[in-house]
This record gives sequence, C-alpha cells and structure tokens, in this order.
Amino acid sequence: MEDTIAAVATAYGEGGIGIIRISGEEALPILQEIFEFHGDTDTFTSRRMTYGKIIDKEKNQIIDEVLAVYMKGPKTYTAEDVVEINCHGSMVSLRKTLALVLRKGARLAEPGEFTKRAFLNGRLDLSQAEAVIDMIRAKTDKSFDVAVSQLEGRLSLKVEEIRQKLLDLLVDITVNIDYPDEDIEEMTYEKLEESIVETQDMIEKLLETSSTGKMIREGIKIAIVGKPNVGKSSLMNGLLKETRAIVTDIPGTTRDTIEEVLSIRNIPVYLVDTAGIRETSDKVEKMGIEKSKEAFNQADFILFLLDGSRSLEEEDLQIMEFLKERKCLVLINKRDLGEAISIEEISAKLPASQVIEASLLKGQGITEIEDAVEDLVYGGEIVQKESMMVNNVRHIELLQQAVKSLTDALHMSERREALDFIEVDVKNAYERLGEIIGETVSDDIINEVFARFCLGK
Amino acid sequence: MEDTIAAVATAYGEGGIGIIRISGEEALPILQEIFEFHGDTDTFTSRRMTYGKIIDKEKNQIIDEVLAVYMKGPKTYTAEDVVEINCHGSMVSLRKTLALVLRKGARLAEPGEFTKRAFLNGRLDLSQAEAVIDMIRAKTDKSFDVAVSQLEGRLSLKVEEIRQKLLDLLVDITVNIDYPDEDIEEMTYEKLEESIVETQDMIEKLLETSSTGKMIREGIKIAIVGKPNVGKSSLMNGLLKETRAIVTDIPGTTRDTIEEVLSIRNIPVYLVDTAGIRETSDKVEKMGIEKSKEAFNQADFILFLLDGSRSLEEEDLQIMEFLKERKCLVLINKRDLGEAISIEEISAKLPASQVIEASLLKGQGITEIEDAVEDLVYGGEIVQKESMMVNNVRHIELLQQAVKSLTDALHMSERREALDFIEVDVKNAYERLGEIIGETVSDDIINEVFARFCLGK
Repeated sequence: MEDTIAAVATAYGEGGIGIIRISGEEALPILQEIFEFHGDTDTFTSRRMTYGKIIDKEKNQIIDEVLAVYMKGPKTYTAEDVVEINCHGSMVSLRKTLALVLRKGARLAEPGEFTKRAFLNGRLDLSQAEAVIDMIRAKTDKSFDVAVSQLEGRLSLKVEEIRQKLLDLLVDITVNIDYPDEDIEEMTYEKLEESIVETQDMIEKLLETSSTGKMIREGIKIAIVGKPNVGKSSLMNGLLKETRAIVTDIPGTTRDTIEEVLSIRNIPVYLVDTAGIRETSDKVEKMGIEKSKEAFNQADFILFLLDGSRSLEEEDLQIMEFLKERKCLVLINKRDLGEAISIEEISAKLPASQVIEASLLKGQGITEIEDAVEDLVYGGEIVQKESMMVNNVRHIELLQQAVKSLTDALHMSERREALDFIEVDVKNAYERLGEIIGETVSDDIINEVFARFCLGK
Repeated sequence: MEDTIAAVATAYGEGGIGIIRISGEEALPILQEIFEFHGDTDTFTSRRMTYGKIIDKEKNQIIDEVLAVYMKGPKTYTAEDVVEINCHGSMVSLRKTLALVLRKGARLAEPGEFTKRAFLNGRLDLSQAEAVIDMIRAKTDKSFDVAVSQLEGRLSLKVEEIRQKLLDLLVDITVNIDYPDEDIEEMTYEKLEESIVETQDMIEKLLETSSTGKMIREGIKIAIVGKPNVGKSSLMNGLLKETRAIVTDIPGTTRDTIEEVLSIRNIPVYLVDTAGIRETSDKVEKMGIEKSKEAFNQADFILFLLDGSRSLEEEDLQIMEFLKERKCLVLINKRDLGEAISIEEISAKLPASQVIEASLLKGQGITEIEDAVEDLVYGGEIVQKESMMVNNVRHIELLQQAVKSLTDALHMSERREALDFIEVDVKNAYERLGEIIGETVSDDIINEVFARFCLGK
C-alpha cells in the first residue's frame, strides 16, 4: 500500500467540472511536477484551492486550466495525502491529465480503492465503507438515508454493542474453564442461556429490518401482464409520476438511463418485461412461456391487467391459467367503459390474488397499486421513520450465521455439555459480527466488497 | 444579474464525487445555513476545502458528508463569490443538496450561465467563453487542443491585432473627413487600398484554417454503403481500433454512449446509416431511396464497398447508378479471395471516385481510408502542428462578412468615392470582428452562444 493511486473521481461524461483524484505519498510531488501556478501564490498550502494550469512539460503543452487542492493526510478521505485536480469536465482533459499523472508515477486506482484505503487506514469500518457505495448507487431518498445512517456508524454501534455482550460472555466462560477453583462468580448453565437468548434477541431484532431494508436498498421487481390495449401505458404513466418528478429535478438529465426504474413511495421498482406470454404462435409458444415463467418467478410482485369493458377472452384465460398459483394484484381496468367482468368471477379463478377495479386513464387504481407495493415492502407495518436498517446481503447472512451459532450454543447448554464446546459457538457468533464491521475479516472478503465500487471512489 | 445561481457542475451519473456549484452574493450565506463544521475549523476561509455535513436543519436531517469550498470574488470562475460543495457522487445526494440550496434562495442556473457571468463580468471574452464549451465537448485530442488555445486567448489576440489595424485606418479616414484642411498626412486612395488589402489578407489567412478547423471541431460524416456481407463489420473493426484505445484509457467507461463516433487520425468521425438503399422492395423503394439520398447528401465522405471476389451484381449496379456523380472512395474488398472485378471497370463507371483494392479482414485498406479522411480534412496539406484555428461557424461567418465589407470598401475606393461611404464599410468590418470577441455584440447573440452550454458550466 506504499504506492500512489489516481483515477477520475466524477461520473463519466461531459460536465462543467471533472475531478482527478490522487492518493498516496507521491500525490503532492506529482502535482508539483505537472502544475504551473497562475494565481497569487506559488506554493501549495494544505486544503487551499489553487488556480493554475496542468502542463505536459516534456511536450511543452498546456493540458487544461484547473483548480487543484492538496490535502495533507491523515485527515483526508483515504487518511493519506490526497490531491484533487478540478479540470474542465471534458473526457479529453480528464484522460490527458490522468495519463500525465500516471506517467509521473501514480498507478491507476482499482474500483473502490480510495475507500478501501480509508478502511485499511482505520478511518471507516467495513460497514461504513459499504455504505459509501450504497449512497452513490441509491435510487431513492429512503435508500440514500439508510446508507447515510450506516456511514454515520449507527449499524456499527449496534453491532459493537452486541459484540461487547458476547465478549463479556466469552470472558465469563473462559474464566470458568481456566480457573474453575478460583473465587469467582460461577457460570451456571441458566445464566449462560439467559445471556445467549438476550443477544440472540438483539440480533433477531436487527434481522427484522432486513426484509424491508433489502427491498429499499435493492428495489423490487414488478411484472406487468395483460393483453394489448388493456391500459399498460396508462399504468406506466400513472406510476411514472413520482419518478418523472425526481428526474426533472435535475434538468438536462437523460431519462434513458433510468427508464426502467420507477420510484413508488420511495421504493425503487424495476419493471420486468413479460411480453413473452403473448407470443404463443405455435412455433415459439414454448420459448415464450418459458421466458415469461422466468420473469414471473423473479418478480416480487405481479400486476395483471384485465379489460373490464369486455368479457374474458382466450388470451386472458391463458394468462390466468398461468398465474393461478401466484399472489397477484389484478386490476379490472376500463371500469368506466362497462362491467363485463365482475370481481367475484376473477377472485374465483385466482383465489390467492387481490382483485380491484380501476380506470387507469382517469388515474383510478394507481393509489391501490402503490399501497400494495408499500404493503409488500413494509410487511403491512406502519412505515418506519427509522433509517437504521440491515439491508446488505453480506450483513444479513452474517447475522443469520451468528444466530445459528448461538442456537447451537443454546442447545449444547441445554444438554449441559462442557463449556469448552459452547465457547466455540459463542466465539463463532462473535467473529461473524466482527466481519460486518471488518474486525475479523479475510482479505478475500475485503477485495470482494470493494470490487463492487465504481471507479474513482 | 444580482441573484445567486446554483447547479450540479459534474456530469450526470454515479461517481465518487459530484459537485454543486453556487455563484453570487448569497453563495456564502447559503452555505453557512446548510453546513455543519466537522473538522478543525468553524469558519470559512476563502479557498479552503472544509470538511463537514450538509444538514437540512428544518427536517433535522443529514443529507451528506461533504467537502465545501468558498471562493471570494472577483478572482473566481464567474468573478463573483463562488461556493463548490463536493458531495458523494450520488444522484440522490446531488438532488437533495441542490434542492436545499434552491430553497435557501438560489435560483437554478441556466445552461452556460456560470460562464456567461464570467463573460459579462469581463473575465473571459466571448470567443474564450465559447472555447470552454468546445473543450467540454471535444471528442479528440486535436479538437481539445484547438479549444484550449482559444481559451488561452490566441484567437482573441489575432482578432484584436486586425481590429487595431482597422481602428488606425478608421482614425485616419475620420481625421481626413473632419479636418481636411489641417496639416496632417493626407489619406490617399492608394494608401487606403493598401491598408484594406493588408487587413483583408490577415483575415483571409485566418479563414484558411477554418475548413480544417471546422472539421476537427465538428467531425466529418462518413456514409458507408455496400450490399450485405461485403465486409462492413471488418471495416468497422479496423476503423474502431483508435477509438477503442481512447475509450479504454478510462476503464469502466461505457462504450454505448459513443459507439457511433470514431476517431480517425484524431479527427472525429460520425458514421451515417445508409441501410435504406437496400430496402427496395416495391412498396418502400421510394422512401428508402429518399432516405439514403439524404444521408448521402449530408455525408462529407462516402465509402463504397464491393466484393472483389464476385462479379458485379444488380445491387452493386443500383448503388453505382446512385453514386455516379459523387466523389467516393471505392474499396474492392476481399481481394484475397478472387479478382472478379477490376479497378478499371469501376473507375470507368465512377469517374469521380478513387478506387482501391482491399482485404479488410486482413487489415488491408484501412490505412488508405485513414489517408483519404486526412486528405479531406487537411486539404492535402501537411498536418499542421499549429493549434490556433478558426473552427466556430459563428466566427467563420463574421470573418467572411468582414472580408466582404472590406471588398466593398476596396471597390468604392477604386471608384474614388467619398471617404464617408468607405468609412461605413470599414467600420462594419471592424464591428464584425468585435462580435467574435464579444466587444460589439447583441444580447440575443450572447444568449444564443450560452444556450449551447451544458448545465453547471
């Protein structure tokens, strides 16, 4: 970790400003080699934005007019010396400046390497480092808030609290094993079980937030199905309302990049294409159905649209045959145009599903869909204001493993087995919790965590 | 211009860092209202990067951990007080922070408004301001270098030099008109004509760079045409070589965004789709041909591919009928597979075109195409190292108008007309040159120039 790394730190594309970030011992010397002062100073003061030009001295060529800042470690993002060069947000300028920095001895940073250094240098724990990438990737306010709370260390604090309890327990066990004859409080199996159950409850309580947390972080998949002209585009328009508002908040942004992601009540929603179900001409029937089956199985939620102004048609019946085992939300649409289908008729055929009437073109039915999505995510509970949630699959699995180890310990205690055996399981739980914050974690896991990052972070 | 403006200054998307830029009198007060110090200071010092949190105090909510910098005017980008907030490069963080800044009294900046203020406050002239957006948009090193040179003021200096000559001339004319009896050097028509021709030559010399400059800045359009399987994908792969190198210089970048732009010898090249020419089933024939005609007419360059291993087919002949008036580069491809077509045969049918033999799959023919593109752009001259070029249509038109006015003045002088009339034309030329650097320019033109900018610049 002795070398100096560099990368483009801003998003890819054209913008007013683009930043090259450099971290390591050589950050300042490299800047000095490529920088020409043009302001009222000719030295770098830590943290002072300094105006000048990036110059390729060998080619005697001006690359860009920039503002550069040198930040002396360890109070920096990586806890090392950091340099940030604010170039014009041009692909060419960023590429040329980065190439020059690399030529002067920096190495191109791997994705997440800046944050990895912050972790390895002890400025962030592992769950905080993971929060950084969650913040950047967040699609909705809620998922962003959960990530901010995690970066603030609220999950780490909770995990530390549980670990401390387990550590106390481990100390008690060890003392009883090693010094059974000393005048210390005896560790009874009853006391042991009480402590284990108590910590187990604390972990379970954290895990209770995980289903909601995971959906808020990763979003849910909705499959929309129905024959043509049944009102899918009205449905899309109705659901897109909130998303459009989000996107147009930053004018000039391209809708293309996020057109398949909606936000429903602050929950990221991915629409799954199930067009396949209708393509049932003899030859491709099987393939189409297989494809749709897959889409349905991956979906967290199925929206099935019917045209309420006309009686059921062959295609509707086909779809219903397909859906009968699943829990769907069925919308009998175009209710304003007629009543050719009744709720009872559909409920009889799809007993597991919720059936509602809608006139999507008039905006009726959208609220019910939003309610259903919210129910799914929050499990029918009142939406929590709390933004501390476990939402990362890695964390969830480690918490589950800790619970399992404690359950094993509990069973052994109930069978009055030797403390030595019980200690192993309690210690195991303690270590799994340590992995969440990166206290007891292997290099492989660290590498895996940071590989998920984007470049320049 | 009294109000304070704000916008996202980095490219749209996910990145390590995203910047909110604020400019105007309220920039610092707004920052103070939303910032909580978390480092070793609790005041803002101009130009010092300061660590802290953006807080929505009304909602008692942390929005993001940031580095903020306040830069006191007038030595800033806009020559006003400027604040830059380096957030996490998350869409949510940028949107929330921007929304808060706007709620505290800033107005959302229009595209280019920061640079427009730099111009209106006299920090940049108009051609320099235009160079900023050219830098950001530049696709190749060469177009970027030309823009940097323009931002450095090299075009402005040249224009100023010519304007100074015209001003001297105008003074001489005016003195001779107003004080014909004074003891001053008399302005003879011969001297007048000599001066006019001299400045005209200077402008013409600038204009000589414009054809190349324009192509380097805006790129050229190449239409590729040929029947299926004639080797288009080998051609694409061959040409993409350089572009791929550029793109992969910044790892993690998406190729999607630029997949139709190539770089050939540092010249941006846009590929024009002419698939239409082959869709000549009776019904759509006319439409297809119309569409292709349009594509051909817009193209700077046509590449026509033939399969050299087979004799000419109906489709080839159709295309040739179509191209016969145009100057094309014809590639007789698949030369390694046979010699069913001769260069002479094609040259006879397409007399205006250059015909070469190629084996694109083996990489033969690519150099010839690159040479042809370079010839087109540089007009057969040796590639200049000079990066001062006139490349902006607005500038080119103004220079042409100035030349025309001077030509008019010259003709009047030759007809020995009154100095008053000649003065009008010389003054006109002087003003057109002033418009390039924004000395004599209307609000409409200024607005039009800055409307081309991206947001946050």
